This record gives sequence, C-alpha cells and structure tokens, in this order.
Amino acid sequence: MTENVVILGAGAVGMTVATYLKRHTGHRVTVFSSDTHTAYSQCGIPFVLEGVIHDFPDLIVRPLDTFLDMGIDLHLETTVNHIDATGQKVISDEGIFEYDHLVIATGSVPFIPTIKGGELDGVFTLHTLSDGMKINCYINDGSRVVIIGAGGIGTELAGSLAVRGIAVTLVEALPQALPLTMDPDMALLVQQHLTLLGVQVVTGAHVDSINGKRHVRSVSVQGDTVPTGTVLSDIVIVATGLRALSGIARDAGYKIGATGGIVTDEHLRVSADGEILDNVYAGGECAEVKEFVTGSPFISRLGSAARRMALVIGENIAGQDAVYPPTLSPNVVVVGEMTAGSVGITSHTAALNDISVVCGISEGRTRAGYYPGGSQLNVKLIFSNRRLVGAQVVAGEGVKERIDALSLAIRMGATVDDLLEWETAYAPPVSMIIDPVTFAADDAKMKMEGLA
Amino acid sequence: MTENVVILGAGAVGMTVATYLKRHTGHRVTVFSSDTHTAYSQCGIPFVLEGVIHDFPDLIVRPLDTFLDMGIDLHLETTVNHIDATGQKVISDEGIFEYDHLVIATGSVPFIPTIKGGELDGVFTLHTLSDGMKINCYINDGSRVVIIGAGGIGTELAGSLAVRGIAVTLVEALPQALPLTMDPDMALLVQQHLTLLGVQVVTGAHVDSINGKRHVRSVSVQGDTVPTGTVLSDIVIVATGLRALSGIARDAGYKIGATGGIVTDEHLRVSADGEILDNVYAGGECAEVKEFVTGSPFISRLGSAARRMALVIGENIAGQDAVYPPTLSPNVVVVGEMTAGSVGITSHTAALNDISVVCGISEGRTRAGYYPGGSQLNVKLIFSNRRLVGAQVVAGEGVKERIDALSLAIRMGATVDDLLEWETAYAPPVSMIIDPVTFAADDAKMKMEGLA
Repeated sequence: MTENVVILGAGAVGMTVATYLKRHTGHRVTVFSSDTHTAYSQCGIPFVLEGVIHDFPDLIVRPLDTFLDMGIDLHLETTVNHIDATGQKVISDEGIFEYDHLVIATGSVPFIPTIKGGELDGVFTLHTLSDGMKINCYINDGSRVVIIGAGGIGTELAGSLAVRGIAVTLVEALPQALPLTMDPDMALLVQQHLTLLGVQVVTGAHVDSINGKRHVRSVSVQGDTVPTGTVLSDIVIVATGLRALSGIARDAGYKIGATGGIVTDEHLRVSADGEILDNVYAGGECAEVKEFVTGSPFISRLGSAARRMALVIGENIAGQDAVYPPTLSPNVVVVGEMTAGSVGITSHTAALNDISVVCGISEGRTRAGYYPGGSQLNVKLIFSNRRLVGAQVVAGEGVKERIDALSLAIRMGATVDDLLEWETAYAPPVSMIIDPVTFAADDAKMKMEGLA
Repeated sequence: MTENVVILGAGAVGMTVATYLKRHTGHRVTVFSSDTHTAYSQCGIPFVLEGVIHDFPDLIVRPLDTFLDMGIDLHLETTVNHIDATGQKVISDEGIFEYDHLVIATGSVPFIPTIKGGELDGVFTLHTLSDGMKINCYINDGSRVVIIGAGGIGTELAGSLAVRGIAVTLVEALPQALPLTMDPDMALLVQQHLTLLGVQVVTGAHVDSINGKRHVRSVSVQGDTVPTGTVLSDIVIVATGLRALSGIARDAGYKIGATGGIVTDEHLRVSADGEILDNVYAGGECAEVKEFVTGSPFISRLGSAARRMALVIGENIAGQDAVYPPTLSPNVVVVGEMTAGSVGITSHTAALNDISVVCGISEGRTRAGYYPGGSQLNVKLIFSNRRLVGAQVVAGEGVKERIDALSLAIRMGATVDDLLEWETAYAPPVSMIIDPVTFAADDAKMKMEGLA
C-alpha cells in the first residue's frame, strides 16, 4: 500500500530514511529542510577551513539530483511551521502536506550564550555548510580568531585553523578541553598538542565581552583566578554546544526530555499524552535516546549514530520490527597530527551517576620503538565492578580503531580479565609487541587488587 | 626459598621468564642459547633489509648488560645436549647444571626442503639476527633474489626487498600467498600489491633446482601447468616454514604432539609417560598449545604470544596459578604500503575441521571519500552458527587495530548481530561514517538469511 511519509530535516537521518524507503517501499516521500544544502558532511567542515580539503562542494557526498531521480519530493529552504498531530498533516510555507508516517529529524542549532557584542560582524557559529562558507569568505591567513568553547567542534576547529597558520585563541569555561568526552588528564594531552600547534588555550575562563564598533576588534576574557585580559581578534566563533531543534515537536504535544530532545522509545517512536505514537518517529540530534552504560537520556551527535537511527526508522516504516539499542556513541576528534577518542563514560560522568570506578592508564607507542614514524599512544580505561565502562585514547594514529574495539568490549560486557586475555597482533611497522591497551588493563587490575 | 631455574633458549620466552623471575623471586636463573644474540626483534629483520631501519643493532631491544646486571646467568653460543629428567639436570658443553624448574623455550628452526643445489653459496634462510646480517652482507641493490615460500616471512621479505629496488621472484608451491592465514581472495590483494611493487609472484609452482657451480646463478621453477622456467638469480632465500626445536625434549621423554611441538597443558607444563610434570614448562615456538576456535593443537609463532606464555610460566614458577588460554594468535604482515592481517580460522581451516561457515565481505576506504590519503580497505568475516570465527583485513592503514578488535570479538563469542550493533567512531581524516567491518557483517547476515 502506498503511503505518505513526511520527513522534517534533510540531514543524515532525513535523507537516509528517504533513500531507504524509496529503495524498499513504494511510499511517497516528502522531505522538508530549512537548510540550503543536503547530504553533506558536517564533520568535514573544519578540514575545508584547514585547507586539506579543497572546497566545500567536496563535502557534498551525494548530488541533489540523485535524490530527485529517486522520486524523493525534496523541499529545501522551506520552513515547516506546525504539525497538526490530530489531522496528521504538516503546515509549511509551501502548503499543507498529509502524512501516514512522520519522521522528525530536524537536528540541532548552536546554543549561543548571551555575550555583550555577540551581534557584531565577525561573530559566527559553525554548524551548517553555509556557516562554513561564510567563515571561509571572512577569514584569511592573517586573521586572529577567538573560538569560544573547547568541545569537539571548537577543539577540532582550533587545530585546523592553527595548522593553516592562523592565530587562534581557544577559550573554555570549564577547567579542561573536551569536558564531555575526556578526563582532564587525557584532555591535557590534546591541550598540549594545540599549544604546540600555536593555539593559545585558555581553560577555566569565560568571555566577558566581544568588543568593536561594527566589526569585532577584540575579546575580553576573564579567568577564574586572573583579571580580565583582552585578546585582539577579527573573528569570533561560538562553539558552546548544540541544542535539539525540538520546538515544533513540543508544540505538537510530543514529549520532550530533560536533554531538550524528543523522547523516543526503542523503536524511535515519539509519545504524546503518555502514549507511544506508532507512526511518528524522531532520530538524530533532535531525538533523545538512551546511553548504554548509565541508561540515562542522551542525545547522540554522531553521523554514524544518525545513519543507524535512520535505518531503524526506515525499517519500522517499511513494516519491520527494528530496534535502536542504547548507544555508546564512540567519538574521535582530529587535532593537527593528533587524534583523541573516547567511548562510554568519563570519570566525571561516573561520579555524577554515583558509579564507583577504577582507572588504568598506559603510555606506549603506535609502532616498535626502533621503527621510524609512529607516535606516542596514551590509553585510559575506566572500569566499574571489573567491567569496562569507558575508554579514552590519544595518539597520532590507530585511535579510532582502538576506540572501536573498546566500544565493542563495553557493549559485550568485557571485564578487566577479558581485556587481559585479549590477544593483539604485532608487526614492527604497525604496533608494539604488546598493545598499550593491555598495559592499561594490567594497571587497572593491579589497582583493583591493591597492588598499585 | 631460592631454587634453580634453568631456561633453554634466550628468545622472547626465555628472557621474559628470566627477567620476570629475577624481579619477583629470589631464584637463581641460568639461561642457555646456541644463538649469538638475545633480546632482539626477529620481526624487524625484513625492515633492516628494506633499509627503513638503519642497522641490525637497532633491533636489539635490550642490551646484554641489563640481563647480566639483573644477575641472570646467561650462556650464549652454548649447546645443551641432553636433559637428565630423572636427575633434574641439563648437560651442556659448559658442564652440568641442576634445576628445580626447567623451562624449554628453544624456539624453532627453518624447515628446509631438499632441493638440488640447496648447498650453493648464496642460499640462505632468514630466522636469526645472524641470518639477517649474512644476507645483508651478500645482497646489493643489483641483486636478483628468489624467495621460496610465500608465508608470512617470505611475503614480508619480498615486499621489503622490492621496496629497496631489488628484483625479487616469490615462488609458492600452493596456489596462493599466505595460505595458512588468508583466504585466496584476500591473499590475491597482497599478491597484486607485491606485483605492483615489482615482485614476480609465482604461485602453484615449486623450485626444481638451484643452479650454479659454487654460487647461485639461477633457479629452475616448475609450475603446476607450465613447463620449467629458469630465473636468473644471485640469492635464494628459503622461507618454507619453521619446525619446533623439540628434539631435546623428545629425547628426555617429554610428549611431542602432531605439530612437532612439545605438548603443554593449560599451565604450559609438559608431560612424560602420561603424567604432567609440575616443574617443567615449554613456551614459544617449540611448544604446542590449543587453538581457540577449533581446540586443535597449535604452535603460535608470534612474539606477543611468546611474551604471554612467558608471563604464565614465570608466574607459575613463582607459585601462582596462571593459565594460558587457547590462542587466536592474530597476525599481521606488512608488505610495502599494505598491511594484511588475520585472526581465527580461514575458510580452508574451517573446511578441514568440517566447520560450515558463512563469509561476509566488504570493500571500503580507511578515510572519508573526499579526504586526501587513506587507502582501500577490504574486510572478510567468517561466521559459523552466526558466531564470528575468523576475520581477515587488508588495507594501507588501520589493519592491526581492526584485527585486534575482531580478535576480541571472536574471544567474546560475538555473533553477527553483535557486530551489527557494534558502534564505531567516525571523523573524516580517520574513517568512513560506517566502518567497512559493519558492512561485511551486513553482507554475512544477508547471506545467512538467504537475501544475498
């Protein structure tokens, strides 16, 4: 039976659901997005600004035509103002569209704190391809850039601009970079690398004001323990986090969680008035799911998670019984020559959840000591009741794959003894004889047994 | 109580046991080896011949003095002729030494098939540091080299010499390279890369004779379906496998297995007359252990396995109750710009053991499509009863870490569904949005369900 599927959002979730349904069902699929572009890699934007990727169109992974050719009815630069949940239709500035199934994949918007001078020319956020293009037009090799916020985007961007030779000051209100994903000791390695790249890293400090008449001229930074300093600056990029774009769902009566995301069940269906709706789904950065270790409400910002959610939604609309399990959302950021990755919970998250943990650390290298190249490799493993619940890895290579392995280990319930029995491969150009992950597990076990 | 520990062999097992005991016990430790060197990286030898590592001494990971300073009584270039099992002593050409604990870690020797002309100058094996030095003295950039045997050592060496610009012919009797560790389709990727590097790869062919008066001048190669051809050659390196050095153990009455290795129990103790001996251990390439998937007798050739066995032996001698679990022995070989790795069983081993398998394959890249650098990434996963039992990965980077992850997956009993739930990290410079391992699992699942 041909049904109408309406999808709000043309990002990774929206377009993957649309493509899946066109391939596997006969449904009519209509997609709305206020964005100008679709099917581009958000994660690639810092690397265009770095210059390692030639130009923004390179980030468009599928041309618009391929979607149109599939028969997807795609409305870009179109605002949907309202969902009529009872009448099962959406009201957009292009008219009214009825749906049998609705997918809310509206994504997120940057959270912008109120800062004096935030309205000046030269103040940007970095979220969409258009944001990236605007910054790229404005910036030049002589620019002085202040980035506010040292989360994943701010940190990666600071590295990219510094590699290009641009003077960057990175200001973070918390005492460390990457506070949501790394412990302070591991984040420090990233901060040190940023400093080597020429980034001025200021943690435990907030921006008092952005100064200038029409254009940004400087930024006043107030440290926790130091007086206000003024950093000359032409460009300010605000990277203080993202907020789920869930207002339209809230207005429709769908339940919104503590995270600000649309609450979903394991099938990624939304609920209203305490009832699960069997034809309305949410996925991606506007959706609240469950974190694997704590079971807490969680919003995953990852493209890989988006794609997985999209397949679950697509399969369910196609009549299957697909489940999105609680997520670990392993993540990596690339900063110059360094990659920093994490999976599971940090020590801080453990403390917030009253989870008692034992950590194991190790420092090794990615290749045999005598083999040229390679880099330092730092590993931190976090255990609770002898089970792995978190892991962080920082090195010049081999980080994403180790984080992946540890993601599997957490999901499969690996104990410290499982990690010690884990056999790893060895060849001098690609590893040490025993992987540093093993030594980190060993360190944790010694601590558990009171030997260290 | 101070006891006498005698260790036969000064390789990775012998010296790790010796070091462990000196650190953790007060035992007297005496080590015998017929080798001239100790504590060097066998696995690094091809890369010295390649020129990427400067010189052989770079491979010596610990100078001899550090062992002597620890009080280890080390006898290099010393032959032990006999073990008096009843009298608990070993008879060497330096005298008689009594032991309370005996560790047999004699390693292996190259297996050399009888080939006409095998005695000519210019015919080598590559096993010890001395072998490497001899070849290095003999070889020059104009040399023409024939390598007999395309196992791990032959294949890696062929790549190393080719990178240096030397003309190499690699002859393998079986129809594929890496027959013990890779399926033919994956091995073909390695063969193609060798060919690109300039190596003449001849599979399904044997060497009829090595020709010359005193020095090697040519090699006659007979293919399965082609007439004998003659390859001009100055150097022949025989890399047709290794044999456990277990003769001295056999003579002492210790049980030898079908592999030729000394049979060990889970504590790595040997047996005689159907009884486990509680003070005689074997480890490394002279010892037979159990393979994880099949439970079959197995000899692990890996340095990492050697180190693990050594710790188990050391702990047991120190009075603990340490167990060496069945081994997966994940392995990688590095050939020019390519790394090929495998873990668990191949399709061929599965067939030999009457294990019915379903394979999933995928081809992707190691980085986002638009990100510069990176390489093709091929993955093959082998499942039996939905459980992962083998995996093979070939790419320019990220192979060893993926093999490690899959080693953990096999050990933890991961099913195809576990692999599909496995979340992997993503950043454009280090990965695709969904890891090719996931797609290989997807492919296998489709085949299991009759959808592909």
